[in-house]
Amino acid sequence: MLLSADARGVYPIAPTPFLVDGAIDFASIDRLADFYVGIGANGLTVLGQLGEAPKLEPAESVAVVRRFIARAAALPVVMGVSAPGFASMRTLAHEAMAAGAAGVMIAPPNTLRSDDQIAGWYRQAVQAIGSDIPFVLQDYPLAFGVQMTPGLIRRIVQELPSCVMLKHEDWPGLEKIAALRGFEREGAMRRIAILCGNGGLFLDYELERGADGANTGYAFPEMLCDVVRLAAAGEREAAHDLFDAHLPLLRYEQQPGLGLAVRKYLLMRRGLLASEAQRAPAAALTSAARQEVEHLLARLARHDARARLGRAPVAA
Amino acid sequence: MLLSADARGVYPIAPTPFLVDGAIDFASIDRLADFYVGIGANGLTVLGQLGEAPKLEPAESVAVVRRFIARAAALPVVMGVSAPGFASMRTLAHEAMAAGAAGVMIAPPNTLRSDDQIAGWYRQAVQAIGSDIPFVLQDYPLAFGVQMTPGLIRRIVQELPSCVMLKHEDWPGLEKIAALRGFEREGAMRRIAILCGNGGLFLDYELERGADGANTGYAFPEMLCDVVRLAAAGEREAAHDLFDAHLPLLRYEQQPGLGLAVRKYLLMRRGLLASEAQRAPAAALTSAARQEVEHLLARLARHDARARLGRAPVAA
Amino acid sequence: MLLSADARGVYPIAPTPFLVDGAIDFASIDRLADFYVGIGANGLTVLGQLGEAPKLEPAESVAVVRRFIARAAALPVVMGVSAPGFASMRTLAHEAMAAGAAGVMIAPPNTLRSDDQIAGWYRQAVQAIGSDIPFVLQDYPLAFGVQMTPGLIRRIVQELPSCVMLKHEDWPGLEKIAALRGFEREGAMRRIAILCGNGGLFLDYELERGADGANTGYAFPEMLCDVVRLAAAGEREAAHDLFDAHLPLLRYEQQPGLGLAVRKYLLMRRGLLASEAQRAPAAALTSAARQEVEHLLARLARHDARARLGRAPVAA
Amino acid sequence: MLLSADARGVYPIAPTPFLVDGAIDFASIDRLADFYVGIGANGLTVLGQLGEAPKLEPAESVAVVRRFIARAAALPVVMGVSAPGFASMRTLAHEAMAAGAAGVMIAPPNTLRSDDQIAGWYRQAVQAIGSDIPFVLQDYPLAFGVQMTPGLIRRIVQELPSCVMLKHEDWPGLEKIAALRGFEREGAMRRIAILCGNGGLFLDYELERGADGANTGYAFPEMLCDVVRLAAAGEREAAHDLFDAHLPLLRYEQQPGLGLAVRKYLLMRRGLLASEAQRAPAAALTSAARQEVEHLLARLARHDARARLGRAPVAA
Repeated sequence: MLLSADARGVYPIAPTPFLVDGAIDFASIDRLADFYVGIGANGLTVLGQLGEAPKLEPAESVAVVRRFIARAAALPVVMGVSAPGFASMRTLAHEAMAAGAAGVMIAPPNTLRSDDQIAGWYRQAVQAIGSDIPFVLQDYPLAFGVQMTPGLIRRIVQELPSCVMLKHEDWPGLEKIAALRGFEREGAMRRIAILCGNGGLFLDYELERGADGANTGYAFPEMLCDVVRLAAAGEREAAHDLFDAHLPLLRYEQQPGLGLAVRKYLLMRRGLLASEAQRAPAAALTSAARQEVEHLLARLARHDARARLGRAPVAA
Repeated sequence: MLLSADARGVYPIAPTPFLVDGAIDFASIDRLADFYVGIGANGLTVLGQLGEAPKLEPAESVAVVRRFIARAAALPVVMGVSAPGFASMRTLAHEAMAAGAAGVMIAPPNTLRSDDQIAGWYRQAVQAIGSDIPFVLQDYPLAFGVQMTPGLIRRIVQELPSCVMLKHEDWPGLEKIAALRGFEREGAMRRIAILCGNGGLFLDYELERGADGANTGYAFPEMLCDVVRLAAAGEREAAHDLFDAHLPLLRYEQQPGLGLAVRKYLLMRRGLLASEAQRAPAAALTSAARQEVEHLLARLARHDARARLGRAPVAA
Repeated sequence: MLLSADARGVYPIAPTPFLVDGAIDFASIDRLADFYVGIGANGLTVLGQLGEAPKLEPAESVAVVRRFIARAAALPVVMGVSAPGFASMRTLAHEAMAAGAAGVMIAPPNTLRSDDQIAGWYRQAVQAIGSDIPFVLQDYPLAFGVQMTPGLIRRIVQELPSCVMLKHEDWPGLEKIAALRGFEREGAMRRIAILCGNGGLFLDYELERGADGANTGYAFPEMLCDVVRLAAAGEREAAHDLFDAHLPLLRYEQQPGLGLAVRKYLLMRRGLLASEAQRAPAAALTSAARQEVEHLLARLARHDARARLGRAPVAA
Repeated sequence: MLLSADARGVYPIAPTPFLVDGAIDFASIDRLADFYVGIGANGLTVLGQLGEAPKLEPAESVAVVRRFIARAAALPVVMGVSAPGFASMRTLAHEAMAAGAAGVMIAPPNTLRSDDQIAGWYRQAVQAIGSDIPFVLQDYPLAFGVQMTPGLIRRIVQELPSCVMLKHEDWPGLEKIAALRGFEREGAMRRIAILCGNGGLFLDYELERGADGANTGYAFPEMLCDVVRLAAAGEREAAHDLFDAHLPLLRYEQQPGLGLAVRKYLLMRRGLLASEAQRAPAAALTSAARQEVEHLLARLARHDARARLGRAPVAA
């Protein structure tokens, strides 16, 4: 089951669960995988930016992806293989595919500037991993400092047939989606899947502009699934109503450098993670931040029963 | 009327109105000033990041600030004087104060890195403009790439008595407010005003963490005033309810590089600006974006009657 | 006398002389202008990166360029007009041309990333100043963080006929010169003048790759003139011998952030500047640094009599 | 044999030799190791910035360091262990020490900005690898974009006893060496070794300012050894004469992004490397560049017989 340009829907970005002592928490991986399958996710991405990939040994990364794939057998699993050098990227990519992954996701190093540098780097990346492995192009200028115009994305897509999906998280980005879909309509670019990241902050309108779905780590991914479904069904206002109800929490989760802590806390509160532990370096939630998250949850619960999580732990 | 550390409430960031031919639109300045006074704003900031300051001749900048001050006589007016060199900064600051401004706002150049560089640069800026002009320290890493820790802000505040206000727009930033207020409680830092920018995206919790108000350009600043008032009155849930109702639009407005276009469009739709014109370089709203803004307005109007603006122009 | 693509030879970058109290030192401007004419310079650039332009009021900038032009009447004078906004750039450019400048030099703002952003920004800059003012494209990634490929430079040159010269200071940059000259040979780009900056650190081979001369602020510009002349006359080894004799000092002068202090000290030692004063912010030479410069001078004087400057001031 | 603050002299930075097919060239490692021992180097650094570390699999990195250690048994060997995450850094560091390395070198990630971020990151790095492994602090703002003031370096040195050496390659950097040695004299900082990188471009004066030697990859490291020895012996002018003779070539080698290609070419020409091959991504020398290097060699050979390398290969 290889990732293809026909992919659509919601591919949650999974965090990597750790026990309090820093060991990988495989039982929580299983719970997460079951959860994603249960809510109707269309796929799964592991070891992305959110997945603390640089804090894992290569062998651990492979163990994590294997476990997710084994448990979420019904879902295509994409593995982040961004690495400082092509040697590590190739090894990770080959191990991912050998483990049954559907494809890999590749983010650009933050030293790239000119269009030629970016296009050339992706060409070399594909040479390194092989042109038979489908890959997701990650376009996230806020995090990487690398800016890709629609024209440059088209160039990469046209030059590299194994590029099947764009993880769109430029900001602002609505016009970029429109421009790419315009290229496709004009026959100037083959169609690729466009799933949106950036915490989902603009998912409501991204779908209306032509995105195929979401590829992000919001702690209530069932909302993402619902919104994608409602939008596809033409229930525009219902989609926006649900999205807007979640927006205060989603916005809180979207703080750079803090988002992972919020998400792990929420997933722990939902019973999916045994612990909110991150490996170092990690930003921890203060007591005040936990209380804010609980407050946001309580307010959300008035609109969405899935946010009724029972009493917060005393520590919060 | 000089700006002091006792400032609080809402200081809207005013855009600079232009006519379609690029000339400064003084009539719209008057309407904006009347509007800000009318909604109970506590002050006003002109020619900030949002105000297209680098697109104005020095003489034009002075004319703009003079007009705002003349019309909004009841309000303290802060003028952005960030400039590539201290010579221009000094001239602008002196002309602002001569025109009756209450103080100036100074953003750091994006080349500063180490704590010593940043502290030294602000020391030189104060030497240039004079230590008798109250200034607002603008902390906006997302836009400037300059990162100030709470300890560095304390150092600047302690070294430079004319620093009376922080325009807080770090992201994430809630813990920074808490840290600064903690310094004050411990007696390690004198109290300064903290007004929040960043489009207002976290104003709800920033107020709860100790911020004194808002200093941002959201196109419905009366919401900011209401939220500050409700929060101060202890009506927490009411404050959040109102804030959340505006969040979808506020979030849309907060897109870097596009926000000004959205704001000018909205202020034109509200009858405050004669035109949404910007001087070059400018990002224009596409037809799709205008429709999205209209959609957001229509949805907001269900919660806040002030968003009922009548029919959109045909062009939208 | 307008700058054209036929320009060649040496255009020294002039520092802006100040008196100890910070006032502009017009007498030193006259001495500098006479000196540049006397050594056979082909032109002159004022208020570039080196010229402390952001520390001058607009009126001062115009006074400086006027004085240089009046005194160095025989030479085409280029004025740096880089500014944070197009309004200031237009005013400066028009005042420069009204004062008799031959053209202007424009550096990109350090926020530009993609090829389209850079090309678009230069298009807008030319719209702002007018397409009748010849301009120098400054390509200095080390200082500006803006990376232009040969293909992008070609695009700018082809789109904007008023671009007549490249101030080449990419690093490494030899292949870039070769690529541009290759485009010209193939008929893919019209010929432009290429003068080299970057302190002159690679001038020896830049000339061999096709550069037309130097456009930099080395404190012994007569060496630059000699090297250009020797290279043009086919005296390759003599050109390298002279260049190499100066390289230890030239290299010392090329330290970012310190170079201006070294240059002003040397020009003061040569009797051309009344003072080494800079306006703030400025990096001053320590006593140890002065002694190093004197040591380099003494060693250079064994090869080039022009470096025999008499006793150093006691302060050094 | 652990690295200590008493280290001095020359620690060449070794490139990683590859065969034309990209395999590691262990025979060339042996030749390089013999060469470094033979010229009187005091130590050796492998897999630094120059060593193409990110292009190696972890197992390959360990094999390379093992081979260098085995062959250069007389010399302390430092291994670069910079990695995107602490997991990889810890593994590499432990394997390096298990293989007999004398210490490790750690460069900061280019995302660090404030003093607290940098100090905190190094604290976590030491927690990850253990405080019993001596480490070299690499201060190279030009490459990493991370700026460390003397005060911050002192803070790191005082907080982390396992920091025994500074690889100094700030630019400008002479005053930084002086400031650190000043701290030591005042008793405000314990003494550490300071070896200089930055291609050796300022080694002549760095030694006079208090540096203990060189830690760079210039292709004639015997010159570095001679200059350090002459300077220590008080033969100042002789040291400068030799340094200046090499400066034109050293300067050519110091071009960012191209330096490794020049060095590998020169080491191949010297018979130490079987091939100049780099792994991708790599910048190759053009024919014109090779001819320039040959020209520089021929000119250097007039002053230093060690640069007489026989006829260049036809390909050059």
